[in-house]
Amino acid sequence: MSKKPLILVTNDDGITAPGILALIEVMETLGDVVVVAPDSPQSGMGHAITINNTLHLDKVSKKGEKTLKYSCSGTPADCVKIAVNEVLDRKPDLCVSGINHGSNSSINVIYSGTMSAAIEAGIEGIPAIGFSNLNYNWEANFEASKKYVKRITKNALKHGIAEGVILNVNIPDLEEKDIKGIKVCRQARANWKEKFDKRKTPQGKDYYWLTGKFVNYDNGSDTDEWALKEGYVSVVPVQFDLTAHHYMQQLNTWQLND
Amino acid sequence: MSKKPLILVTNDDGITAPGILALIEVMETLGDVVVVAPDSPQSGMGHAITINNTLHLDKVSKKGEKTLKYSCSGTPADCVKIAVNEVLDRKPDLCVSGINHGSNSSINVIYSGTMSAAIEAGIEGIPAIGFSNLNYNWEANFEASKKYVKRITKNALKHGIAEGVILNVNIPDLEEKDIKGIKVCRQARANWKEKFDKRKTPQGKDYYWLTGKFVNYDNGSDTDEWALKEGYVSVVPVQFDLTAHHYMQQLNTWQLND
Repeated sequence: MSKKPLILVTNDDGITAPGILALIEVMETLGDVVVVAPDSPQSGMGHAITINNTLHLDKVSKKGEKTLKYSCSGTPADCVKIAVNEVLDRKPDLCVSGINHGSNSSINVIYSGTMSAAIEAGIEGIPAIGFSNLNYNWEANFEASKKYVKRITKNALKHGIAEGVILNVNIPDLEEKDIKGIKVCRQARANWKEKFDKRKTPQGKDYYWLTGKFVNYDNGSDTDEWALKEGYVSVVPVQFDLTAHHYMQQLNTWQLND
Repeated sequence: MSKKPLILVTNDDGITAPGILALIEVMETLGDVVVVAPDSPQSGMGHAITINNTLHLDKVSKKGEKTLKYSCSGTPADCVKIAVNEVLDRKPDLCVSGINHGSNSSINVIYSGTMSAAIEAGIEGIPAIGFSNLNYNWEANFEASKKYVKRITKNALKHGIAEGVILNVNIPDLEEKDIKGIKVCRQARANWKEKFDKRKTPQGKDYYWLTGKFVNYDNGSDTDEWALKEGYVSVVPVQFDLTAHHYMQQLNTWQLND
């Protein structure tokens, strides 16, 4: 039995994405690694799970390769569920998701497949971190990211992460020398102003592509958007208790039982 | 111009589900109603959005029908986005989602397409409520639900809902005389213990169905699970700021910048 931590790696860009390869490379220096990741890109899948369809799981690591790798036909949240139940022989010590190609800062956490995998692990009581790099390109450079992924993961393994909390880490698209450090932040108040690109099928019927513009309403210097703009890596602790506790008293003044 | 509130109705079970028909019936007594709902069931879709595929929108209400109805090929969150941007000529005064066939209490809020539609509306600054009935069957009886849907919606229209808060309403599967009233609650700490049903394809390859058992770890009498078990309608105020504010101080004691 190895005493190294058992680390589950997943993502939402699919098991062949350069971002997950960078993440696996770092994790192999920190523990025993098992990869269960989607067989195709799953961006924007939010916390979707597959309940009306079958799931397929394929071992894709080669004979002799030290890290076991599986591709799964499901969503990022499915990957964590099937890894814990059908692949791993014990509960992992950590689950890391990413490195996502593109930001999951502020409101993007809600739409993010990367973060849904990490949050699913958190729900199952596994310490978890989602990592994202602000560069959307498949050719993004992950060299600087790897340094920060390693530092944050080492801290998480050393200190532990409280139950019910998951870390959402975003890394600016900068060279290592230009990254100023790491900041613990809150989620900025921001959203997407959608624009639907309306087109016509060859048969003349309307259809749409969803596009949009990110709008930040929150210039607080304690937010992830501020930190990233200033050249810091942002770390937002995230929870899955969605209760707006501050609003319960107000709701109790309504005439709900009169 | 009508002075009645403009109410957007959506769901995740699809536009033909009995639950949305019950919801439309109630909303037509309270305002001008427009329906934009998925053209097929979208349960378990979480906060998925469609970014790698096209969206199709079809008017399905008949000539002369007072309520405009559109079916959309996308997810519940897509339905809200396309309704606001391409269907409605002004921002709606309220968005209601449901009535879901099945519970969205406690941790189910994370996986719920019904609630993702309501949360999407909340993100866009529209007061929003998701309604669910604990009966999973297509033949569920919505008579008692309609009474509570109406009472809660009237309160929301009268008092307004604070920005950043969405209501998650669950209704027990009981006859009207057996429902004890409405309780404002917090989300119970609960999760699903997955079990994968492993089968073989006709060609002998393994595949899986995701199944599971709901486990409640939280017997607090201020939780939604408690209220529902006791025969109350539960109302949980939900937020999309996922920041675990209570954990930021702890994270700042880590060696993140040493």
